[in-house]
Amino acid sequence: MPAVLVLNGPNLNLLGTREPEVYGSQTLADIQARCEPVAAALGWTLEMRQTNHEGVLVDWLHEAGARVRAGSVVGVVLNPGAYTHTSVAIRDAIDGAQVPVIEVHLSNVHARESFRHHSYVSPVARGVIVGLGARGYELAIQALALD
Amino acid sequence: MPAVLVLNGPNLNLLGTREPEVYGSQTLADIQARCEPVAAALGWTLEMRQTNHEGVLVDWLHEAGARVRAGSVVGVVLNPGAYTHTSVAIRDAIDGAQVPVIEVHLSNVHARESFRHHSYVSPVARGVIVGLGARGYELAIQALALD
Amino acid sequence: MPAVLVLNGPNLNLLGTREPEVYGSQTLADIQARCEPVAAALGWTLEMRQTNHEGVLVDWLHEAGARVRAGSVVGVVLNPGAYTHTSVAIRDAIDGAQVPVIEVHLSNVHARESFRHHSYVSPVARGVIVGLGARGYELAIQALALD
Amino acid sequence: MPAVLVLNGPNLNLLGTREPEVYGSQTLADIQARCEPVAAALGWTLEMRQTNHEGVLVDWLHEAGARVRAGSVVGVVLNPGAYTHTSVAIRDAIDGAQVPVIEVHLSNVHARESFRHHSYVSPVARGVIVGLGARGYELAIQALALD
Amino acid sequence: MPAVLVLNGPNLNLLGTREPEVYGSQTLADIQARCEPVAAALGWTLEMRQTNHEGVLVDWLHEAGARVRAGSVVGVVLNPGAYTHTSVAIRDAIDGAQVPVIEVHLSNVHARESFRHHSYVSPVARGVIVGLGARGYELAIQALALD
Amino acid sequence: MPAVLVLNGPNLNLLGTREPEVYGSQTLADIQARCEPVAAALGWTLEMRQTNHEGVLVDWLHEAGARVRAGSVVGVVLNPGAYTHTSVAIRDAIDGAQVPVIEVHLSNVHARESFRHHSYVSPVARGVIVGLGARGYELAIQALALD
Amino acid sequence: MPAVLVLNGPNLNLLGTREPEVYGSQTLADIQARCEPVAAALGWTLEMRQTNHEGVLVDWLHEAGARVRAGSVVGVVLNPGAYTHTSVAIRDAIDGAQVPVIEVHLSNVHARESFRHHSYVSPVARGVIVGLGARGYELAIQALALD
Amino acid sequence: MPAVLVLNGPNLNLLGTREPEVYGSQTLADIQARCEPVAAALGWTLEMRQTNHEGVLVDWLHEAGARVRAGSVVGVVLNPGAYTHTSVAIRDAIDGAQVPVIEVHLSNVHARESFRHHSYVSPVARGVIVGLGARGYELAIQALALD
Amino acid sequence: MPAVLVLNGPNLNLLGTREPEVYGSQTLADIQARCEPVAAALGWTLEMRQTNHEGVLVDWLHEAGARVRAGSVVGVVLNPGAYTHTSVAIRDAIDGAQVPVIEVHLSNVHARESFRHHSYVSPVARGVIVGLGARGYELAIQALALD
Amino acid sequence: MPAVLVLNGPNLNLLGTREPEVYGSQTLADIQARCEPVAAALGWTLEMRQTNHEGVLVDWLHEAGARVRAGSVVGVVLNPGAYTHTSVAIRDAIDGAQVPVIEVHLSNVHARESFRHHSYVSPVARGVIVGLGARGYELAIQALALD
Amino acid sequence: MPAVLVLNGPNLNLLGTREPEVYGSQTLADIQARCEPVAAALGWTLEMRQTNHEGVLVDWLHEAGARVRAGSVVGVVLNPGAYTHTSVAIRDAIDGAQVPVIEVHLSNVHARESFRHHSYVSPVARGVIVGLGARGYELAIQALALD
Amino acid sequence: MPAVLVLNGPNLNLLGTREPEVYGSQTLADIQARCEPVAAALGWTLEMRQTNHEGVLVDWLHEAGARVRAGSVVGVVLNPGAYTHTSVAIRDAIDGAQVPVIEVHLSNVHARESFRHHSYVSPVARGVIVGLGARGYELAIQALALD
Repeated sequence: MPAVLVLNGPNLNLLGTREPEVYGSQTLADIQARCEPVAAALGWTLEMRQTNHEGVLVDWLHEAGARVRAGSVVGVVLNPGAYTHTSVAIRDAIDGAQVPVIEVHLSNVHARESFRHHSYVSPVARGVIVGLGARGYELAIQALALD
Repeated sequence: MPAVLVLNGPNLNLLGTREPEVYGSQTLADIQARCEPVAAALGWTLEMRQTNHEGVLVDWLHEAGARVRAGSVVGVVLNPGAYTHTSVAIRDAIDGAQVPVIEVHLSNVHARESFRHHSYVSPVARGVIVGLGARGYELAIQALALD
Repeated sequence: MPAVLVLNGPNLNLLGTREPEVYGSQTLADIQARCEPVAAALGWTLEMRQTNHEGVLVDWLHEAGARVRAGSVVGVVLNPGAYTHTSVAIRDAIDGAQVPVIEVHLSNVHARESFRHHSYVSPVARGVIVGLGARGYELAIQALALD
Repeated sequence: MPAVLVLNGPNLNLLGTREPEVYGSQTLADIQARCEPVAAALGWTLEMRQTNHEGVLVDWLHEAGARVRAGSVVGVVLNPGAYTHTSVAIRDAIDGAQVPVIEVHLSNVHARESFRHHSYVSPVARGVIVGLGARGYELAIQALALD
Repeated sequence: MPAVLVLNGPNLNLLGTREPEVYGSQTLADIQARCEPVAAALGWTLEMRQTNHEGVLVDWLHEAGARVRAGSVVGVVLNPGAYTHTSVAIRDAIDGAQVPVIEVHLSNVHARESFRHHSYVSPVARGVIVGLGARGYELAIQALALD
Repeated sequence: MPAVLVLNGPNLNLLGTREPEVYGSQTLADIQARCEPVAAALGWTLEMRQTNHEGVLVDWLHEAGARVRAGSVVGVVLNPGAYTHTSVAIRDAIDGAQVPVIEVHLSNVHARESFRHHSYVSPVARGVIVGLGARGYELAIQALALD
Repeated sequence: MPAVLVLNGPNLNLLGTREPEVYGSQTLADIQARCEPVAAALGWTLEMRQTNHEGVLVDWLHEAGARVRAGSVVGVVLNPGAYTHTSVAIRDAIDGAQVPVIEVHLSNVHARESFRHHSYVSPVARGVIVGLGARGYELAIQALALD
Repeated sequence: MPAVLVLNGPNLNLLGTREPEVYGSQTLADIQARCEPVAAALGWTLEMRQTNHEGVLVDWLHEAGARVRAGSVVGVVLNPGAYTHTSVAIRDAIDGAQVPVIEVHLSNVHARESFRHHSYVSPVARGVIVGLGARGYELAIQALALD
Repeated sequence: MPAVLVLNGPNLNLLGTREPEVYGSQTLADIQARCEPVAAALGWTLEMRQTNHEGVLVDWLHEAGARVRAGSVVGVVLNPGAYTHTSVAIRDAIDGAQVPVIEVHLSNVHARESFRHHSYVSPVARGVIVGLGARGYELAIQALALD
Repeated sequence: MPAVLVLNGPNLNLLGTREPEVYGSQTLADIQARCEPVAAALGWTLEMRQTNHEGVLVDWLHEAGARVRAGSVVGVVLNPGAYTHTSVAIRDAIDGAQVPVIEVHLSNVHARESFRHHSYVSPVARGVIVGLGARGYELAIQALALD
Repeated sequence: MPAVLVLNGPNLNLLGTREPEVYGSQTLADIQARCEPVAAALGWTLEMRQTNHEGVLVDWLHEAGARVRAGSVVGVVLNPGAYTHTSVAIRDAIDGAQVPVIEVHLSNVHARESFRHHSYVSPVARGVIVGLGARGYELAIQALALD
Repeated sequence: MPAVLVLNGPNLNLLGTREPEVYGSQTLADIQARCEPVAAALGWTLEMRQTNHEGVLVDWLHEAGARVRAGSVVGVVLNPGAYTHTSVAIRDAIDGAQVPVIEVHLSNVHARESFRHHSYVSPVARGVIVGLGARGYELAIQALALD
């Protein structure tokens, strides 16, 4: 069974224990538990990862690109966290490795500080889902099933 | 059965016959046909409307707010079209009438002209779904089921 | 007896039932009730209207201009709502129809989001009254009595 | 005989009676009278309309697009008035309905306030004629005869 | 009887003798004469002052705050003149001393140079009255009677 | 017979042989051939010139101003090419020498790079014609016949 | 014993009685009481002053410069208050009189309105201490002991 | 004999003892000594003043305006120092009191920090002399003799 | 004994051997030696670390947050180096992990290139100390003792 | 006798015959006549030139630099006209050829369009004289006598 | 034999297999093969590295600085990839470690998105070579031979 | 043998005698002497020219384009000097005449004033070489040999 990669950027390991009024009370493990049946229903396994390192996200996107071409990955659900707003490297990794990416943000970034309104990633993502909390991950996986 | 309102702004009546490379080949009627079973699965009927008039969208959002409070509407899936980028009135209507709104855009607005990158609506929407074509409407209806 | 027109823009029909901490608890009908004696004391009747449509405001301003020239209207108290910040058409209507206009805002727009700090209408208004709630309408009517 | 549509935006109904030093002393009816023989010389009838409503302009452009494809309209001479500077909806209507448009402005918008220097319409117009008064309409009709 | 303080900033001592086409032909003394009966009708005395010194305005606002708390002053009508556009100190004095302030401008600052369009004072004022000449002071005193 | 001067700026000597998809396939000589009968119909001769030198354009505009006052020139059709966007000197020459100028651009400059959207020349031109190819020159000559 | 001057700008006389959630509950006298032993431990006396007048701050900085050169002052702890953001004169006084200055702000100015993020004083200060409340004054005195 | 007023703003009292590489080695007294014969040659006395207070400069400009109208002052040579860049009050004083002003800067402000490139005073000055050191004052006095 | 963490960002390992005119001649080891007695006097041990990796700083801040909650760390002295100006991830780590942070910069960043004037970290730091060289670290440790 | 070069840029040949309300009624010849005795009194001859070509101004400044080094020219009075605002080449010519330059503008450029407020030349000029009409040239020659 | 280090930033490991129309069809190994004889001709070995991690580039630049001082490295050819536009840390590493750097970009960054037009690295590089594909690396090595 | 044209813009004739710390001590003749063997090694002659006139550079680029098509020129090494930053005409000449151009700058323009950071020429050049002094010309000639 091919996999969907769910890649999470900086500080998302704090999820559930910090600022639940902004990010919700679920941990990444909770989200993984919610998402696995959604993936399974589409015939996919789910690999969830988190890192605080921009370079590791770039590495993982390259890996994803190679596996997409090998048929073992269907695409990436990517929550780039704070790197959304500052990383041209991640943008270029998506573009260069030709990975189908659905960008997800738990909170409504457009209702927060102005530096969170711009995403370097969105123009190279296939789609963007914002402000729907943990449910956004589920919808993003479904979105990858789009032909 | 309560209804979900799917409100569409200017030029979306042209959908399917114009620029399919940007907006996809489906008409609003096609989208309605796809969305009705999604709504039905959630126990809702679906009302789809389209207008080219900013004021009519404001009127409809007021109506939606009243019906939400009366329990006959669960929320709004809103594609404000070009008014996304220019209408403070629509933003204030959502805010003032306290309507749960999922904002949807068929195309990836972040990959187009810079004046399409800013949305007056997003900060007052519950969630935003961008770039997923007609499928984005289906996901938006599901998103309204979020508690 | 000549009339003063009190024209209200989008979402002001929600007044009193929505966000009373921002806009006060009075409805447009309440404001009308407060304003009528003020107008009467100046020898004027009062016509209060509200619309969510930019074009209707333009139409009304043209009507006002014609009636001012005919002597049946003394001027306009205008709360353009959200169109304050986006409508060149309303500005041009005031300028083109040569209507004496007092611009009124219930809330202190300068203490809110930055996109509410600029008004297209102010430079062509005779005066501007901001942040005084329903009372601002009364003062605006009095201001029209200025020679 | 096919028609040329001459569509006029907000406040242009005031033409001739207001600010003749800026807009000239001719009314829309005068302009229509001047333009009809120009259209007739090209084998066309002329339909002149005016509205203060953005949404009506969008509706008319859609109608124009359908009639162009049906062969009963050759193109549109459009003076969007104040909506020139604020309406993405009109821009998208021209683009989406694929109407050949010549944009016309009576006054020299580039010599006026800076917010009049930018046009959302120009990039999707076939040509733009500025500052030539009522004569600009005549030239615009001739411009539509361009192959 | 409690007092209303009417504080005037730089160059307002020139009023009446300079640029009557912009600021009107009335002197500060004339304005005082017009305002005293308005204050008296509300049961207040009126103290009118003028200074060209930013620091003196700050001192006076502190004094006003103390007297408001002591019950001997009801509020301030403030025309900060040119300091409107440059003084964070006056803004902080209003905010820090918690004085009810109605900001007044004789001329329509929004129709003049762009550096006059921004006010540091407005966001901390209770209300703002612009462009109504000497009459604006009278309305401002009435506005202080608002509960 | 008085003359109309048709002055062309930098790179327009390349016309017809370079980038026909942007500028059309006609050479300056072709345009001259099309324009001469238009001028003749108005009782004018036509002098067409081209230079790559900003200073030469300034010199020619001074010459034009002198000849206009002498009655031997009726006005100038000016395509300033790239100097449109960078030359205050040409603007001042038109203003200082009081030459009636119709500014012409072959391509739709508003649909190209953003640095081509601003013209120093437009505010001092009598009219501007954009995006109509070689035909724009013909219309510009007709525009000079405006009283 | 040489002195350290502690100079305070506008509205700091309100300290302790106003907005304790922003500026803390200590008065200037409290701060003086805390700072005197810190200065004494370094062999210095402490002179604390406050003014609401920009010009007085400039005068004091000139006095400080003269006394530094005479050996009777070791340096200045300066809280310029609102003049931080607007006064080139104070900046030039520090630069011109060559006074060693430690700039202090009680609150975290970088977490407040954007106009408080820029300081004209910082580039000519020896050091800057922000957001540490009254304790920041103590640290600033210690900072002056730096060689 | 009428007088020319030479008014100097903040920090100019430091002249000659501070930063001679920027401002020259002459004191205000030296400049006065150089300027008096220049004024005398024109039949004028010379009054030189300096203040660090913005409000005092405004007061002096009002005084100058009154004396100009009384015939005892011919005009003002004004070096506003740092207030050049921040004071709308001084600008309005010149404009309101209708004083003929020659603005002088010792150093070349255009070759220094960018915040020194803009002057609020220049648009209302009769002339501006920059970068010529003490000699600029002499030329400014001569410039006041212009009819 | 609880510890204070002193975390240093990119290029600070070069300290003392490079550009002593900007950053001083002390190495990180020298700073550690100066700071340990300061921490000891407050009853704390001191852990000093340096990394060139943004992600490692985020990891360390998470560790610090956990240890603060466990009572084994009192807070962080953070010199984010160049990441000060570019890292939203570090800002979010401080905010998300709720670590008390004193931000320190050796040099006066406000007197250097403009891109060093903005800090993403300052708004979420408890305090900021700038321009005091190695001594700033000592003051920052003392600042952590603030209640 | 060494010479002072008075170099004039584009459109200054129109002087006296065009827009006397802006530029005065004197021609360049008149200015030359006024300036020659001023130069003679300083022991200099005067060479006055005018060109509309940016490149010619650069050539002349190179010539001036060579003659300054040869001792036959004392410096340049330069009115760059419209090139003031657009020419980096002229700026670099002054800087590269090391010519002492006094920049002169007849009108008060700071009171005109905003694009005239910036000068590329001022930062490399020895001094700048603005708004004093033809008299400014005389003062500029005197300014060149500065040691 | 001393070495030249060729350091490559994020996504350059994808070279040759991705987007050959932008970056050319050569892999990093191909580039290394082309560059080694160029280095050898100058008496140098060549070490080529690639990383997706900003911190690793900083580490390598520090290593390069140490080896330059030890005489075992002559300089660095640096293609910072996407970090060009976002990394102050890399800039400071070059500056702090005093490494001679030639910055290279395969594609013409100035003809791509505007966020690629600014480089934090260029101001501290010895030279910059842009748009010459793999050949740019060869020229960069030759450029390091510059005395 | 075909030729490479080396075209130099304004002020480059001053090279070697002026500001050697910025531009190096070599004259254009020295550069020509260094470049001729480089061209000869590639089988090309070398024509070096310099002008201070923007229009002449445009003329030469047109000539180059014609000769490239005739086979007698291989390409252009262009140092546009100050016109780099201001000339759209030169940009359009390169684009219109389809000349292969390598842009060269002797100094590191990115380390100088901000107005030198933008080049109108770079987006239409084949490559850009910055900051390598006279050697940059040699590398540019080699770069033209790229297929």
